[in-house]
Amino acid sequence: MKVAYLGPQGSFSEEAALRYFADQQNDWHKCDSIVDVLEAVEEGIADKGIVPIENSIEGTINITADGLLRHDLFVEAEIIFPVSLHLLTLKGAALDEISEVWSIVPALAQCRDFIRKSKVKSRQFDSTSAAAQAVKNQERKDVAAIASKYAAEVFDLQITKSGIQDNANNHTRFVVISKENTEVSEPKTKTMLLISPTEDYSGVLSSILNVFTALSINLTWIESRPTKKQLGTYHFFVEAQNGLHEEKMNKAITILQAFGHDVRVLGSYNTTKL
Amino acid sequence: MKVAYLGPQGSFSEEAALRYFADQQNDWHKCDSIVDVLEAVEEGIADKGIVPIENSIEGTINITADGLLRHDLFVEAEIIFPVSLHLLTLKGAALDEISEVWSIVPALAQCRDFIRKSKVKSRQFDSTSAAAQAVKNQERKDVAAIASKYAAEVFDLQITKSGIQDNANNHTRFVVISKENTEVSEPKTKTMLLISPTEDYSGVLSSILNVFTALSINLTWIESRPTKKQLGTYHFFVEAQNGLHEEKMNKAITILQAFGHDVRVLGSYNTTKL
Repeated sequence: MKVAYLGPQGSFSEEAALRYFADQQNDWHKCDSIVDVLEAVEEGIADKGIVPIENSIEGTINITADGLLRHDLFVEAEIIFPVSLHLLTLKGAALDEISEVWSIVPALAQCRDFIRKSKVKSRQFDSTSAAAQAVKNQERKDVAAIASKYAAEVFDLQITKSGIQDNANNHTRFVVISKENTEVSEPKTKTMLLISPTEDYSGVLSSILNVFTALSINLTWIESRPTKKQLGTYHFFVEAQNGLHEEKMNKAITILQAFGHDVRVLGSYNTTKL
Repeated sequence: MKVAYLGPQGSFSEEAALRYFADQQNDWHKCDSIVDVLEAVEEGIADKGIVPIENSIEGTINITADGLLRHDLFVEAEIIFPVSLHLLTLKGAALDEISEVWSIVPALAQCRDFIRKSKVKSRQFDSTSAAAQAVKNQERKDVAAIASKYAAEVFDLQITKSGIQDNANNHTRFVVISKENTEVSEPKTKTMLLISPTEDYSGVLSSILNVFTALSINLTWIESRPTKKQLGTYHFFVEAQNGLHEEKMNKAITILQAFGHDVRVLGSYNTTKL
């Protein structure tokens, strides 16, 4: 099986992919961006893809949500991955020498407190591992990458300060995507729907949520993404704590469609904690 | 009056600030980041600040939402600003020579289709205007900045292709922030609340939205931001189409508080379309 992921060596996506698919004999397809992962799966270049969808500090990963909107793909699994961000430097560098930190935007955002308190500059890279590799290549002792322990091992860097993210309880939620829908009759613990209201009437979100409340369906995630047509109009991602094998989930979908909303079932799946 | 904004010369924030505060004699306080704008206002370095909160393609600007969560500030006005993104190059450069585009992440995201179709590389800068300035300074004809017409004028660059964003109807919503709350008895057209549920029970968002539905209050914006304490727990930003001078807005707040939620009134304000 071929699995696509956001692939510079040493990335969190790589670590999640290697650990989640550890039992299987796999071929890996490394991609330069999240959109490339989604396209590789849609075009059949890879059988499955793994992409981050939410982080406990940064919130929803918009590129992934917008990608699921644009591509005809299904979610077949959810992975909860603990994220610890460290300050990686060349060997022998000291903490007080560092004047600049390099990383991807969400990781810089996750370390806002550290960056502000230590008054260092920040520079944006395409991934945490690209930043780690740049620190390794440039041989500057005054810069540090914000990246994982795994990246420190891959690029032979020193962890000069560990756990620098704003909150110790930091997790990233990945989803495994595929081109084929999973078997809906199998019991699963969660279902993701994408609801696009056909009309933009006031109170539309509350009317949607009431359907779930009336059927005693617990929602674990709600995200609105702009339709990109007009400011103030949205698509809604909704994740329910019930599988598609359950009668009430199918009732909810039927009722939402009867209201006139466009409902896309993104998949029914289980959660794995790594 | 001193107004703080995200300040490299030629930025959209600068253009919005200059146009919105055009009638007044102002002192400007240029900041390096959105967080710096919020801090300048909180610390009294500036009287008011202007920050982007939502874009019709990219959605909520998370740094601003999280900043409003962390800082004790009020919203006193909303500005709707039309955004058109252009490809800015050195004079004499041709479109088919361009192999790389430079801009801030949200602007690159707003031009995803163009970037993918033209197969150019993208590089991240801290602002659209920093990218424009870099194009000017580096004297490379194979790179282009994605920035505004205003930035083209400021840095004397050529608009090699105009309106390259994915959707022609692209707007950014700015808010004007201040340390003092506005006079609530004056009629205003909108109110922004920040609702933090005290407990994380299922159906909490639907119970919150039902209060507004029951009082016939139209909501124009709902955004959840992670509490950053645990994956799956959120604060909710809610914007209503009613002013705080209206009885029903005050009823809604009282009821939400009686439910046990923490409700912060971020302000009541009018909208200006630039």
